[in-house]
Order: sequence, then C-alpha cells, then structure tokens
Amino acid sequence: MVCIVAGGAGFIGAGLTRRLLDRGHTVVAADNLSRGRAEHLSAVAGHPAFRLIEADLASAAGCKVVFEAAAELGAIDTVWHLAANSDIPAGVADARIDLKDTFLTTFEILAAMRAHGAPRLMFASSSAVYGDLGDVALAEDSGPLLPISNYGAMKLASEAQIAAAAESFLAQALLFRFPNVVGTPATHGALVDFTRRLKADPTVLRVLGDGTQRKPYLHVDELIEAMFAAHDGAPQGVRPYNIGPPDHGVTVRWMAQKVVERVSPGARLEFGSGPRGWVGDVPRFHYALDAIAALGWRPALDSAGAVSRAIDEIARQEGL
Amino acid sequence: MVCIVAGGAGFIGAGLTRRLLDRGHTVVAADNLSRGRAEHLSAVAGHPAFRLIEADLASAAGCKVVFEAAAELGAIDTVWHLAANSDIPAGVADARIDLKDTFLTTFEILAAMRAHGAPRLMFASSSAVYGDLGDVALAEDSGPLLPISNYGAMKLASEAQIAAAAESFLAQALLFRFPNVVGTPATHGALVDFTRRLKADPTVLRVLGDGTQRKPYLHVDELIEAMFAAHDGAPQGVRPYNIGPPDHGVTVRWMAQKVVERVSPGARLEFGSGPRGWVGDVPRFHYALDAIAALGWRPALDSAGAVSRAIDEIARQEGL
Repeated sequence: MVCIVAGGAGFIGAGLTRRLLDRGHTVVAADNLSRGRAEHLSAVAGHPAFRLIEADLASAAGCKVVFEAAAELGAIDTVWHLAANSDIPAGVADARIDLKDTFLTTFEILAAMRAHGAPRLMFASSSAVYGDLGDVALAEDSGPLLPISNYGAMKLASEAQIAAAAESFLAQALLFRFPNVVGTPATHGALVDFTRRLKADPTVLRVLGDGTQRKPYLHVDELIEAMFAAHDGAPQGVRPYNIGPPDHGVTVRWMAQKVVERVSPGARLEFGSGPRGWVGDVPRFHYALDAIAALGWRPALDSAGAVSRAIDEIARQEGL
Repeated sequence: MVCIVAGGAGFIGAGLTRRLLDRGHTVVAADNLSRGRAEHLSAVAGHPAFRLIEADLASAAGCKVVFEAAAELGAIDTVWHLAANSDIPAGVADARIDLKDTFLTTFEILAAMRAHGAPRLMFASSSAVYGDLGDVALAEDSGPLLPISNYGAMKLASEAQIAAAAESFLAQALLFRFPNVVGTPATHGALVDFTRRLKADPTVLRVLGDGTQRKPYLHVDELIEAMFAAHDGAPQGVRPYNIGPPDHGVTVRWMAQKVVERVSPGARLEFGSGPRGWVGDVPRFHYALDAIAALGWRPALDSAGAVSRAIDEIARQEGL
C-alpha cells in the first residue's frame, strides 16, 4: 500500500512517516521544507520503502510531481495531509499565507487525488475550526463554526472542500481535529519558544498574555496512534474526529513554570496582559471525545503528563 | 453612505442595488458580467448615486479598481457580497470554478476592505453550508457542517474567512444563509430552466431526478427585505442568519406541474430516477428561523406562494 504524507518532514509528519514505515507501508513524504527539515527523517533515509520529495503542494505542478512519483511505486491508497502554515500569528498578519499553505495545499491535493483515483484522505484539522464557543465541551457537531484566526478559517475551508470531495469521488475522508500537540522534533509552539528564549537569556522568561490561557495538550506519539485507530476502525465516508486528552488542559503559566524548572531554575517569569497571546488565539477550550473513544483510543498521558514529557524531550533537542 | 454590491448585476444583486438606492445610499455595483447583465440595472442607469463597474472581484486588481472608485464617492460603509458561481453542477465538475468565483471573491474583497477600512460586510451565504443533515430543522448552530457540493464548500470557506476577519478588523459581518430564491431577473435555477425547455418544446418537460426533492423557496423581494431587517437590527460582530419561508417547501414535481400549467398546459412531464438532480444536490431541508424572526422579519409568502408568483414573472420575462 502506497501512502503519501503531505508535510512529511514536519513535526507531526516525520513521526507519522516513521510509524507508517513500521506498519509496512510504502511512504512518499512530500514537504516544501519551509519548516519541515530532511534531518527529521534521517532515521529512515535509507529505508527501501521510503522517498522524500521536496515540492510545493499548494501548486498543481508540485502535486503532479509527488503523485506521479508515488504512482510509480504502486496504487496510491491513502494521503495523509499535514501540510499547513503552523505560524498562526503570521497568518493573521498576512491572510495569503494560510490561503496558500493551509488551504490551497488541500485544494490541489484533492485535485491530484481525483486525477489518480486515490480513495482515502486523512486530514490534519484543528480545534481552531470551532473558534471561541466558550466553556462548552466541543463535540464534532458543535456550532456555529466561526473561526477567529485565518489558520482556523483555512482549516475549516479545507474540511468543507474535503467533505464535498467525499460526496463526489473519495471513498473515505477523516477530519482529525487536533488539540495543541507537543513533542519532538519541535519546530514551533510555546514550549520550544520558551526553551529557546531561556537558552538565549537564562535570567528571564517573558510570556505573551497573562498566562491564564488553558488548553489541552497531547503528545505527538499518542496523536499518531489516535489517527491509526481511526484509520483502522472508522467507517467509509466523511467524518470529523476530535483528538485530545480527556481534560481541560494546563495553563500557559504552568507550562512556563515547568520549562523554567527544567531549563533554567530560578529564572524570573514575566507575563503580559489579557487572556490572549495574539489576535486569533482561543483562550480556552476542551473536547468531547466520544467519537474517537468509540474506536478504542484513549491516551495514556493527560495534558500535564504530555507537556512534562515534551519539555524534557525539547530541552534535549536544544542541547540542554 | 457608500455601499458596494459585489455581483450587483446578478439576479439578487440587481434588485438589492435598486432598493439600496431607494434607501438613499450611494451604490457601486461591481460585476464580472458573466451571468449578471447591465440590462438588469437599466432602471437605475442614470441615477446620480449609482455606478456600475465591470470587474473580476476574484482578483486583487479587480477589487482595487472597484474600491478606489467607491472611495472617491465617500467613505465605504457596507459591502454586500453576492458575487459567486451560481451553477452548482458546473462547480462539482470543475472545482476551480467555485474556488475562484465563490471563494476567492470573498478573500479578495476582505483584503480590500481591510486596506480601505470598510467596516461592514453583508454576505450571501447558503443553505448548502449545512450539507445533508437529514430531516432536522437547520438552526444556525447545527452541525457538523459537511457540504456536499463545491459550491457549499466555498460558501462555508467564505463564512470562515469572514469570521476570522471579524475578529481581526471588521466591525460587523452578517452571514445570510439563503434558501432557494426565485423571482426576476431570473438567470438560472429550475423555474427558468423549465420555462425555457417548454418554450423550445411545448409538448414535453423532462426533469432531472424523480421530482421528490423538496426545498423551501423565497421570493427575491422578500429576501432583500430580510437582509435589510438584519442590516438595520443585528448587533455588531459576526453572526449567521438563516433566511427562508417558515415551511418545508414544495417539491420539484409540484413546481414542474405549475410551470406546465402556466407556460404550456397539457405538456407531458417526464422524470428521472433518484431523489437528487445531480451530485451535490441536497434532496430536502428546512430551516429554524428564530434568529431572523427575532429581528422582526417574517415573509408574506410561503414557498408555494413565492414559486407561483415567480413562475408568472419568469414567464413574462421570457415573453410568454
């Protein structure tokens, strides 16, 4: 079975690519290498069932190269689409970034899947599609869906285009609504930011917002197993799945304290004002997880456990 | 107050433009004139507060021309965005049509609104954002939103991008989820199709699908008043509004019979098979209308009344 992993050299894509190879698939990882890096895949670089292709999947030409290379290896079964702009503030400042990297990747991947008769799409969506619905447990049918960032908007736009494709030509499309995900190889996010700032100045850590933002965190290894549970057990057709820990999460303040403890004990913590780190940041949310639980998946780590493990992994990644 | 009507020479845009001029606004109607026609606006062609500009609003260059022309007339207050591909089957066959005409128009209009500081957007969304949720009364917070046509997908993508813009720079954004809308100047839709087919062959009317599709229909004149009720009464921020008649609609079979009665009594009716006319056609839906009713709007005509009135108007438009 030939799989394509779009964004395959990124934070989540690299781990997913390794696990797909473990499971015996042939894997073509495609990445524009803007944030993803070939080194993230160095452990599998010589694997006979693996190829890495540098390509911009937001263009028809880039998708053509990748899909034709994959088709040479056998019939393309599943596309795992994790390619996106992961810098939410950058996307709020310039909407064209999310248009291209978060939505047009989806659009062009779908066009290529139709052309190649690839039947199955596993899509990395996001809690950001829900916008800010307040203190309700977000279920897959919660609404109205009014995202507050261009990133969330272009993830919802992608879900919508995928749903229409499922009606027209895809056999299966699973929409995985990720929480915040932590672990290595860390390329972005609060934990790696905090760690790098403390590395640059071990005396102080300045945090955007007042630190009261509370969100659920999942370790990347558990996220990948959740996607496999859905891939292996979900019915045909299109279906959204929340993926996350069964808790309300941890605060930014708690995470900052934990990073300080691990990286630079005694450093001073300074907070900004207001509950949001930036425009488009949802200050808190928590998930209803019945749909993914019904497929037998349950994480071993809660948010605190996932963050604690990731802090240590990231510190080691950064040579600390 | 200067308004821009995107898609201002189209079926709904032309009527809206006339009514905005009645209300004392300065109106710049922008249209690529692909389906819209300048003749639809001939009644106001000489009005001193009116301009029609031919432009492709899916491009930044097209938006620039329109917004700069509008800004010369005064501060731009409200953009009414009704530009879209209205041919759903064409959009299912070629996803690029809805990408460009239904979504990129929204994207570029938002970019131009940000550049010009235009605060208010009134958007023509659609029941198609709901996909096929079965026999529930669709409320604005119903979900999951899984559109089954590219048209519906790009309307939902537009809503999402507008919601993010409302968080970032718009003062108000109303998302009007239209039902099927009938009336004149009719450019597309079942009634004008039936009428033209009977004009070409008065002996027989062939209908796609088995005719059991049942949908709510609203007369265009009432739709425009509903939008004014929301424009005048809705709070700031972003909010979706269902607009439609308070009923479950009429069937395609009933409409076909009514067109035959008016246009070519005695013509034979022939139906296809299956409840859907084409891929992406939602076979039936009905709306919960509490949100728009709370603003004081209620239609005078039910679906049967709206269709009956429109059949006669369309027959006269077609010289019958």
